[in-house]
Amino acid sequence: METLNVALFGFGTIGTGVAKLLFNHKDRIIRVTGKNVCLVKICDTNITGTRDVDVPRGVLTTDADSIFNDPNIHIGIELIGGLEPARTFVLRLLESGKDVITANKALLAQHGAELFNAARKYNRTIAFEASVCGGIPLLNALQTALQANSFQSITAIVNGTCNYILSQMESGKTAYKDAVAQAQKLGYAEADPAMDVNGTDSAQKLAILAQIAFGASADWQLIPRTGIEAVDAIDFRYAKELGYRIKLLAAAVRSTEGLELHVSPTLVKADNPLAKVRDAFNAVRAVGDAVGPVFFQGLGAGQMPTASAVVGDIIDTVLGRTAITFRTLNLWKTEQAAVLKSPNEFFGKSYLRFKVEDQPGVMHEITGILGKQNISIASMIQHEPDEESPHDDAVLILTTHECREGGLLTAIETLESLPAVLGKVVRLRVQR
Amino acid sequence: METLNVALFGFGTIGTGVAKLLFNHKDRIIRVTGKNVCLVKICDTNITGTRDVDVPRGVLTTDADSIFNDPNIHIGIELIGGLEPARTFVLRLLESGKDVITANKALLAQHGAELFNAARKYNRTIAFEASVCGGIPLLNALQTALQANSFQSITAIVNGTCNYILSQMESGKTAYKDAVAQAQKLGYAEADPAMDVNGTDSAQKLAILAQIAFGASADWQLIPRTGIEAVDAIDFRYAKELGYRIKLLAAAVRSTEGLELHVSPTLVKADNPLAKVRDAFNAVRAVGDAVGPVFFQGLGAGQMPTASAVVGDIIDTVLGRTAITFRTLNLWKTEQAAVLKSPNEFFGKSYLRFKVEDQPGVMHEITGILGKQNISIASMIQHEPDEESPHDDAVLILTTHECREGGLLTAIETLESLPAVLGKVVRLRVQR
Repeated sequence: METLNVALFGFGTIGTGVAKLLFNHKDRIIRVTGKNVCLVKICDTNITGTRDVDVPRGVLTTDADSIFNDPNIHIGIELIGGLEPARTFVLRLLESGKDVITANKALLAQHGAELFNAARKYNRTIAFEASVCGGIPLLNALQTALQANSFQSITAIVNGTCNYILSQMESGKTAYKDAVAQAQKLGYAEADPAMDVNGTDSAQKLAILAQIAFGASADWQLIPRTGIEAVDAIDFRYAKELGYRIKLLAAAVRSTEGLELHVSPTLVKADNPLAKVRDAFNAVRAVGDAVGPVFFQGLGAGQMPTASAVVGDIIDTVLGRTAITFRTLNLWKTEQAAVLKSPNEFFGKSYLRFKVEDQPGVMHEITGILGKQNISIASMIQHEPDEESPHDDAVLILTTHECREGGLLTAIETLESLPAVLGKVVRLRVQR
Repeated sequence: METLNVALFGFGTIGTGVAKLLFNHKDRIIRVTGKNVCLVKICDTNITGTRDVDVPRGVLTTDADSIFNDPNIHIGIELIGGLEPARTFVLRLLESGKDVITANKALLAQHGAELFNAARKYNRTIAFEASVCGGIPLLNALQTALQANSFQSITAIVNGTCNYILSQMESGKTAYKDAVAQAQKLGYAEADPAMDVNGTDSAQKLAILAQIAFGASADWQLIPRTGIEAVDAIDFRYAKELGYRIKLLAAAVRSTEGLELHVSPTLVKADNPLAKVRDAFNAVRAVGDAVGPVFFQGLGAGQMPTASAVVGDIIDTVLGRTAITFRTLNLWKTEQAAVLKSPNEFFGKSYLRFKVEDQPGVMHEITGILGKQNISIASMIQHEPDEESPHDDAVLILTTHECREGGLLTAIETLESLPAVLGKVVRLRVQR
């Protein structure tokens, strides 16, 4: 039986999960691949801490060079996260003739073109199923079984931490700060959850999805994004009143004028499967012109779901399926670029919440500003002042019909400049 | 550019969909495969009817031999359905050196071993994504991205016709017969829907899933199955009262003693994603030991969703991914056989509905019979006679805790022999 040696960079939670599968379920991988896939090196700066897996003597190392320089190592798995040294390590793995597997969405979103071009140059492959939606076999499906489709849209909950926090807040019993603390306690959120809650993580994953499903090279930093900090407890109540739930959605929507990409807390109709995705689950709704809507749900993070995707990639790489897919799709080729719509030209529905002074003529003024931007109102809520919910005082909720983003942003700016409008206008998107 | 010729058998609804994609979206397939994939022959006994696609002159034929004998045809697509001549045609395609793509679950469930052994003998492949859950990229996911898992269970709604009928009945406004008629009108149900509603179709698909996910060679005819004819309108009301919906589930559940396979109308907790799958949608919940629960939903039948899966298989076959997967999994190898549990040893919860005469001592007798078989009651409903719902009179609903199937069947037989029990006991499964 042929032996294939694998090295792992990054011995954290996911790395430990991958080591568990490779050490404890060797039989499973041999049965599928017909090859003896050996995890021969695990490289980390900290190799003294205890992990929940038995590692054979000589496997742990702090010396990355010993891996790059070993011609008997065929596959390198990058689970360090972040940009450096992950980028340098991946480039060195490719240069030294090794195929790469990574779970690093930030790295791909930022340096996808450089890394994929390097892989093409050295005739190597990069597999990255774990980088978006962890255990959900989404990238694989988009790259293989659904290839006969032209995709119309992909709408996804790609950040389990945010979904957990929103689910907790929706229950009505947990405030934002407490929900964040709870997510940290459960290991969903990082010590610094900023990249999750401000939409960065979702935008990076959306850039990868746009590349795969639409061949679009999008700079993730230019994807308009609103984080979940924008959402207040009362938004859940108003959303419910209007028949919606609130989810942080990463959306790619194709129209004749180009591709819309955005990340935003979004009102989703209560009967949409995405509305029912709770806790730390991820979910994706892709609409293809042949297949229609396809919906996937699963654990997007966590040790074993992510390790499942990484080891799936190892198997695909060993068997040669990755090579075929990699060659076929030509991802992050510089000549490739679908037309991205400018954010001002986005076209969709919105939810606006703001406080107004209770005085004659205010509504007339507000509706005039909206009308001037061709924005038509779909629904409106203003509750009578109520002793039981005093924070409702003079809160005005508007949802719009589909309108141009540019006009909406101008209208919001004008509204905020009105003396009768108190504070900022909170704007969430509404799912079509 | 290399040309690859494809022939299609069966020019019905699905065949027309495949022809649409191959003729009208040639560019899409060229972009992915780098090859000119040409649909050169469409064979059917009826080639005079009009279809919703323009077919170039010379493509339509009634002469199957002309395809088998043409060495320039590389791939044959079997969309005839049923056992013969589909079986003979597939064997002849393989013998004549052509790879095969089929959407025929009955054929695979019945003759999988024969066909796969023939493919191995002639060094050809069979791809069959469309045979289970149409457009959902399920078989692909189980065979590739999820390969690092050992599966614990697969629970699925694999028959869109039945799901449509149950959804209609659940709304409370449609009787079984009307729902069936409506399904036929919408093109979901066949003129003779017997194979759908009696669970045959689901059992055949379950046999294929058992093969792929558990390596289990199951005779589909031996899979215990109950059709949806068993379900009455009042069962939806009682199920709702207990917090459940009713779905026709095909289930494969692994335990230390072996694999349980069964098809049955099943009470599913209202918050389970499977409970929310409506109309003609299919859905699958697979639980892997690493990935945890993964949920898929999509259109399981219909022209374009099924064609999406068939053309996905064409692309995979042309690119060589099918060859890798086919060789790797060794499906329907005769030496391969997971232990199937005997139905009497199944272990699960049940819902029982039957009529009892309203007389002293009856409940005592019933609970005695159940107790004797070690069956413990989880919940019980008996409504007071009510003028508004006279059909409730003396209807008794019992749900059980987990119990041995053999004991339950003995208990049901004994109950039915009691003078105080009127008619048959209706038994549905309850999802764990």
